[in-house]
Amino acid sequence: MRIRVLITGGTFDKEYNELDGTLFFKNTHLPEMLTLGRSRVDVAVTSLMMIDSLDMTDEHRNRVIKECRNAEEERILITHGTDTMEVTARVLGGAKLPKTIVLTGAMVPYKFGSSDGLFNLGSALAFVQTLPHGVYIAMNGRYFAWDNVRKNKKIGMFEELRK
Amino acid sequence: MRIRVLITGGTFDKEYNELDGTLFFKNTHLPEMLTLGRSRVDVAVTSLMMIDSLDMTDEHRNRVIKECRNAEEERILITHGTDTMEVTARVLGGAKLPKTIVLTGAMVPYKFGSSDGLFNLGSALAFVQTLPHGVYIAMNGRYFAWDNVRKNKKIGMFEELRK
Amino acid sequence: MRIRVLITGGTFDKEYNELDGTLFFKNTHLPEMLTLGRSRVDVAVTSLMMIDSLDMTDEHRNRVIKECRNAEEERILITHGTDTMEVTARVLGGAKLPKTIVLTGAMVPYKFGSSDGLFNLGSALAFVQTLPHGVYIAMNGRYFAWDNVRKNKKIGMFEELRK
Amino acid sequence: MRIRVLITGGTFDKEYNELDGTLFFKNTHLPEMLTLGRSRVDVAVTSLMMIDSLDMTDEHRNRVIKECRNAEEERILITHGTDTMEVTARVLGGAKLPKTIVLTGAMVPYKFGSSDGLFNLGSALAFVQTLPHGVYIAMNGRYFAWDNVRKNKKIGMFEELRK
Repeated sequence: MRIRVLITGGTFDKEYNELDGTLFFKNTHLPEMLTLGRSRVDVAVTSLMMIDSLDMTDEHRNRVIKECRNAEEERILITHGTDTMEVTARVLGGAKLPKTIVLTGAMVPYKFGSSDGLFNLGSALAFVQTLPHGVYIAMNGRYFAWDNVRKNKKIGMFEELRK
Repeated sequence: MRIRVLITGGTFDKEYNELDGTLFFKNTHLPEMLTLGRSRVDVAVTSLMMIDSLDMTDEHRNRVIKECRNAEEERILITHGTDTMEVTARVLGGAKLPKTIVLTGAMVPYKFGSSDGLFNLGSALAFVQTLPHGVYIAMNGRYFAWDNVRKNKKIGMFEELRK
Repeated sequence: MRIRVLITGGTFDKEYNELDGTLFFKNTHLPEMLTLGRSRVDVAVTSLMMIDSLDMTDEHRNRVIKECRNAEEERILITHGTDTMEVTARVLGGAKLPKTIVLTGAMVPYKFGSSDGLFNLGSALAFVQTLPHGVYIAMNGRYFAWDNVRKNKKIGMFEELRK
Repeated sequence: MRIRVLITGGTFDKEYNELDGTLFFKNTHLPEMLTLGRSRVDVAVTSLMMIDSLDMTDEHRNRVIKECRNAEEERILITHGTDTMEVTARVLGGAKLPKTIVLTGAMVPYKFGSSDGLFNLGSALAFVQTLPHGVYIAMNGRYFAWDNVRKNKKIGMFEELRK
């Protein structure tokens, strides 16, 4: 069972530019993270875009849907910035594809000591292998259905809209 | 849904003793790892023992089974050394408890830079939430049924006994 | 021989705010870094300010000079942002205090994996113990006299103005 | 001013063998550490041996002395296990070479999160540039003359034999 991984950027992949002190995107760290996790899951990685999720437009999201629809794989993992992850999840959920799609991300860049990225990647990869068809967000060790999730921006955690 | 976590030791929790250059056990790093992962999974942690899995005896394994049987929780995560993880999985599998039990561990201590521990914990926590009743090993981003798994000691990876 | 350490902020002490994705200052990491280095140097730390060195004004620099002049210690280490470190060094050099004063900093925040901070702190602490009276910048494993140093911003390295 | 760096092994360079859980030597991490420190010190590195300092014999020490004597450089940095660092320092001190020789090491392997290695390397590199001819140990942010130093093995710190 091969899993398609779509990279869209987000905090996951941000790096520190030591020449000007800003955060920026270069390449995805996903292959490095899978190596660190000694992952033997069969994955095929597509780097779709490398953007902050606050900059994600309808056009970007349409491209994500199109990639999910056209992918040969039935199970798809999407790395995504956390700020608008719930928006992309809703758009994907509305598309009603016969697939298991899991979005994940990180609160702290992978390259910084205190990142939650490796934990999230491990859990998202497990959820995408086991959950039934549907669109989910995997954060904080949990999974959330696309139509019942939001990021609580005050505490930086994901939660259900209703219990 | 609360998950019971049973700590038995293993590479996961080994530390470097800078006074004599040996590896040893002090306390479990599991709570620290859950904090780093920003986990919001409801867990109750029991530190059962703190041993190298090569030192695990029948008596130790009986204690693990007893804890699993007596736990109020239906879903149980066990941290365990990788060397004999498959043995404990088989013993637990033979007990046929009506529970979902997932064993996980690490190839490199959590405290060392290159550890797979956080990735494994993330995936194991996801698998224990989603898999049906049974006993599983979660390593290398994958899950394995208790009666179809072994550690390939030459490459340090887990694999099926038969496809 | 006690060394006075004056904290002014700079990249050294920047942290990542996971709620909004910005870099900010909270507390100095200097004590934590000295502990990691198992330092047994006798130091007294004063946190003077916690600012980006691009925001450092004449007033801030006057405060630094005043602290150096009034310090009981003859040997003083100053942590400082790298962008205007040479400016503060020149102002301190002009004050001609009968002391050994060493400025150091980091290109990457200490809290990020790839920081040069611990290396720089080790070298600066050694230079301040061994150099004669004067004002110096300690970066890139080297020391530079206050009147013969600049940051080459294209490569992010310090160099002599003239050989 | 070029500095000769002689590698002899020690905790500095130990790695974790994830296949059998032992600590072992592969290659020196010194070049990687100098890169992390953004060092621009002119160094020439010679990997002499890769051993635990408890295994260092008279023959090994004679080889170190010979290398120091024959080196073109006047300033020499030696990485060395901490357990017998004082012994090698005394042997080198007795040789009365007209050079500045600094020995340093680490209490925790560089590859483990909590290593003091980068701090020690920074300080040793600074001391070797600034101290007069003689043989010194650079540990804990300090330097010690070869005939007035010992490792206090109870606390894992270096100290003077007499004040």
